[in-house]
Amino acid sequence: MINTNKIRFVLSRTTHPGNIGGVARAIKNMGFRQLYLVSPLNYPHEEAIARSSGAEDILENAKIVDSLEGAVTDCNIIFGTSARRRSLPWPLLNASECAYKMKEYLMHENTVAVIFGQERTGLTNAELALCHYHLNIPCDSEFASLNLVTAVAIVAYELRDKLFNTKIQVENVEINASAQDMERFYKHLEQTLIKINFLDPENPRLLMRKLRRLFNRSLIQTNELNILRGILTAIDTLKGNDN
Amino acid sequence: MINTNKIRFVLSRTTHPGNIGGVARAIKNMGFRQLYLVSPLNYPHEEAIARSSGAEDILENAKIVDSLEGAVTDCNIIFGTSARRRSLPWPLLNASECAYKMKEYLMHENTVAVIFGQERTGLTNAELALCHYHLNIPCDSEFASLNLVTAVAIVAYELRDKLFNTKIQVENVEINASAQDMERFYKHLEQTLIKINFLDPENPRLLMRKLRRLFNRSLIQTNELNILRGILTAIDTLKGNDN
Repeated sequence: MINTNKIRFVLSRTTHPGNIGGVARAIKNMGFRQLYLVSPLNYPHEEAIARSSGAEDILENAKIVDSLEGAVTDCNIIFGTSARRRSLPWPLLNASECAYKMKEYLMHENTVAVIFGQERTGLTNAELALCHYHLNIPCDSEFASLNLVTAVAIVAYELRDKLFNTKIQVENVEINASAQDMERFYKHLEQTLIKINFLDPENPRLLMRKLRRLFNRSLIQTNELNILRGILTAIDTLKGNDN
Repeated sequence: MINTNKIRFVLSRTTHPGNIGGVARAIKNMGFRQLYLVSPLNYPHEEAIARSSGAEDILENAKIVDSLEGAVTDCNIIFGTSARRRSLPWPLLNASECAYKMKEYLMHENTVAVIFGQERTGLTNAELALCHYHLNIPCDSEFASLNLVTAVAIVAYELRDKLFNTKIQVENVEINASAQDMERFYKHLEQTLIKINFLDPENPRLLMRKLRRLFNRSLIQTNELNILRGILTAIDTLKGNDN
């Protein structure tokens, strides 16, 4: 039995409060309840309540946080929606493929987040770098800018369809490291790379983002993260490495 | 080749002009262009244009008619959306089944209409009686009232998916590392882990196998492998690390 409270919809820096209400309605329509708002503009707002049309409970229980990291810190798998191709390609799934993946992870007790960026600009590259998968909703390439509520509704619809209407074979999935633990690892990795003079903090280029992509693609498990942290600590304590 | 101009979205007696704009945007997003408006209230209206966000052409070309019969007169197959079960049951399909049916009819040169009722009340029994099929979008039975734009967007999304069945092409511009290069990397990694006293060659346990699994899962690209080898070399050349 899948616990739908383990799927979290996260809106980052939403501009129009009406869209927040519309999203609350759309996720409740599909049987989901967990809404996180990262630094929403003009919120709370009566237009959010008006557009929620009976989903005020979702708005009342929505968690408001001031960073995306804070919204996903206890999540194991993070999907980021992206309309544009990025310079640094990430594992990319369409909405239906995503829904199947989410189902797999939910069946193994992972907490899953799906994040949606600001209306005009979408997710920033830094926000997308927090994700394990990028989610693209197939649409006309000539007119690909989806309304935020529409995008959330399609993802929620697909997820509901795959969770409750489809039987699928599931591969073995272990518990993944949480976003918080991965962030600690990336911070540690960055510090160590600076210490060993591999990363120049004055000219970091895309190094950390490339490494994030590599490790996120691998979906690091908790026991593996312990090994990686152990290696970093072993490097840190080398005797010559104290400058 | 399917002619997407043979699929027609029909809105009956829509109350909020903003919803008409939202629908124009949603159908254009999915590559459709034919919008018919049956006796819309408060229309034309600036809010329709605002919510269309770049789909003004769909609004400009929308046909306004004063009866549903007039909107579908030249159509061969008519689908009517319905949230509630009606007293007189009709052939009922979910959105995905509908999309497959629509595709079949479109492939045989039929003109297909899908009609959406007024926001609060939906299609009347008389309107539903014009239809060949009733379409139900699966959603939570406790909170089944979908926003009009959301309903249209989900139907258009499903139809686009079934018509074009677009698998996303992941542009893997990069070349994956060869097995030989990966073996050299694993050998280098093992030597470095021994040097930094993280791996005890007398008692290696499963460490290298675990690390292989982690990196293999990630399908390392050549440029990423260069980064990893660079990190190992930076560790090797630390001045204290020469025992």
